[in-house]
Amino acid sequence: MDIRRRQSKPVRVGDVQIGGDAPIVVQSMTNTSTADAQATLRQTYDLAELGCEIVRVAVPDRHAAAALPQIVRHSPLPVIADIHYDYRLAMASLRAGVHGLRLNPGNIRDPEKVRAVVRAAKERQVPIRVGVNEGSLPPLPPLGDGELPPPKWQRMVDAALWEIRLLEEMDFDAIKVSVKAFDVPTTVAAYREIARRTPYALHLGITEAGTLRSGSIRNAVGIALLLAEGIGDTIRVSLSADPKEEIPVAYDILRALNLRQRGPTIIACPTCGRIEVDLIPLANQVEEHFQKLGKPITVAVMGCVVNGPGEAREADVGIAAGKGKGAIFRAGQVVRVVDEKDYLSALVEEGQKVIAEKWA
Amino acid sequence: MDIRRRQSKPVRVGDVQIGGDAPIVVQSMTNTSTADAQATLRQTYDLAELGCEIVRVAVPDRHAAAALPQIVRHSPLPVIADIHYDYRLAMASLRAGVHGLRLNPGNIRDPEKVRAVVRAAKERQVPIRVGVNEGSLPPLPPLGDGELPPPKWQRMVDAALWEIRLLEEMDFDAIKVSVKAFDVPTTVAAYREIARRTPYALHLGITEAGTLRSGSIRNAVGIALLLAEGIGDTIRVSLSADPKEEIPVAYDILRALNLRQRGPTIIACPTCGRIEVDLIPLANQVEEHFQKLGKPITVAVMGCVVNGPGEAREADVGIAAGKGKGAIFRAGQVVRVVDEKDYLSALVEEGQKVIAEKWA
Repeated sequence: MDIRRRQSKPVRVGDVQIGGDAPIVVQSMTNTSTADAQATLRQTYDLAELGCEIVRVAVPDRHAAAALPQIVRHSPLPVIADIHYDYRLAMASLRAGVHGLRLNPGNIRDPEKVRAVVRAAKERQVPIRVGVNEGSLPPLPPLGDGELPPPKWQRMVDAALWEIRLLEEMDFDAIKVSVKAFDVPTTVAAYREIARRTPYALHLGITEAGTLRSGSIRNAVGIALLLAEGIGDTIRVSLSADPKEEIPVAYDILRALNLRQRGPTIIACPTCGRIEVDLIPLANQVEEHFQKLGKPITVAVMGCVVNGPGEAREADVGIAAGKGKGAIFRAGQVVRVVDEKDYLSALVEEGQKVIAEKWA
Repeated sequence: MDIRRRQSKPVRVGDVQIGGDAPIVVQSMTNTSTADAQATLRQTYDLAELGCEIVRVAVPDRHAAAALPQIVRHSPLPVIADIHYDYRLAMASLRAGVHGLRLNPGNIRDPEKVRAVVRAAKERQVPIRVGVNEGSLPPLPPLGDGELPPPKWQRMVDAALWEIRLLEEMDFDAIKVSVKAFDVPTTVAAYREIARRTPYALHLGITEAGTLRSGSIRNAVGIALLLAEGIGDTIRVSLSADPKEEIPVAYDILRALNLRQRGPTIIACPTCGRIEVDLIPLANQVEEHFQKLGKPITVAVMGCVVNGPGEAREADVGIAAGKGKGAIFRAGQVVRVVDEKDYLSALVEEGQKVIAEKWA
């Protein structure tokens, strides 16, 4: 399975390129009150530490807008202002120095006000993400006799194309587009079509995906189907959970497709009635330890002679653990056999040697 | 996006059909010692309650085989015996009345012993799953001058086809096939090819996928890519975690693709700086409550005027919650406006009305 990436027109959000040949960018959104600059910055630092590359903040009112200069000044990440309805908030955000705007021109309605925002963004070379979510589609025009309504993905694409034209008419092309739905097949159909109809970088996501577990799976399925077709330049996993939960899920999706690796990849067996060692805590401890070191090492934690050695050999470092004794592998070779109490320390020690060699 | 399902030759594992027009079957594997029939049955009951439809147990030795008659007699689910190396364990499992066998004939080696198992399975109309994992590939034959080794997915498919022929030569066709790897692109390429080359039902999975979070995402990505192409008749999410964790993930994957729905679907917004109510605990409480009722109801928990009402309208029941007050929707209509302290009880009450009407 080869992924041939769609060639999109790149834009820059601060110092981060999205689209073109850039790696798929991971972003999130704060859920603090943006008016509280301190809390928003604290969350942004936490997100950055986990690997988030761009942060978006909601700007629902003038109190939020008033906090933006301070947020932009101290943020470790480029900041995108999320605006709905009131174009004056977009103008204030641009004056505050934000690096990107998320705007739904359909919500601002008056094209003259949209044009004012676009003019100001152009002067400052700030890109704008447009596009609709399924929840904010414009109302359906009256249908003729026997006429069927277009499918929802088509209505989403039509609305996004209308917004894009509004920007293009003003010679503005620093555009990203999103067409998110809750329903995965609808989302996939909409992105396929918008990918075909425009050259712009695409921001992928699933709206209102839900709670931590079921939302993570819904995001993974929808985002991965598109990325596997080469569609998508930046992703935002959205969950009804602490935004910090979104970042590891985003990297897990990219890692599963071999698109990006951040932190360790743990190959670990599912444990079965064949197992002679308590593997689940060992796998979790190994993951936790190497997560802190932040290097893209691959570690195998296997408790079984059936698939264990075969898999462990492929990893940078691994263990095939049996009853009381385990074989530690490094770069395809058994380097030592250790007692059960030393499984974790031996893996960590050998892993650190690999890290020292590969990422010194 | 339409999913056109590959037409596979169905088999029956006990009273569960796999393949053909049957829904995608969810299965798991116990990680208790199979020799401990009590513990294995207890785990099987827990899995069944969560929606698991077939259980697999490892049979690594004669103690495990000796427990099988009791397990089979009391199991709420059809039981598949997982055998490696020793064909006598397969014979004992068949005598114990198991409903399916998982066998890697490449591990048994002697074709005569494989034939003895196949004969016994045929007499009892017990299907066999064959196929290789990337960790148990046969060794590569010596390569000629300048000859490149075939890609791993090709070697996996070749090994599986060899195993299939062994069974076909004995007129045995109650076959399921799996070709699992840790690497998602390798897994997808292998299943695509085996789907093209054989008519049999396919068991999907990712081997050694890892810990709860990253393993769930890897399973979701790999399994969903194949299901979206119409490939796959039964799935097993494998995690280095309690097997009970595997079942909700499996259903979340199927739900995201609209292939099956079990229990509630929660549409919930990701919360942002625009939000005026603490949505995360509300969404979790709603999910937990409706999970217990087991009906496939769709509930929207929205904290926002931007996307909230649009999404909430599509759900069976929903709330668009603002500051202190929330609008409860049912079947597209606002049915009442309630105070913040009554959000959960009002949703539950209206949800129960929907359940009474739709699934009475």
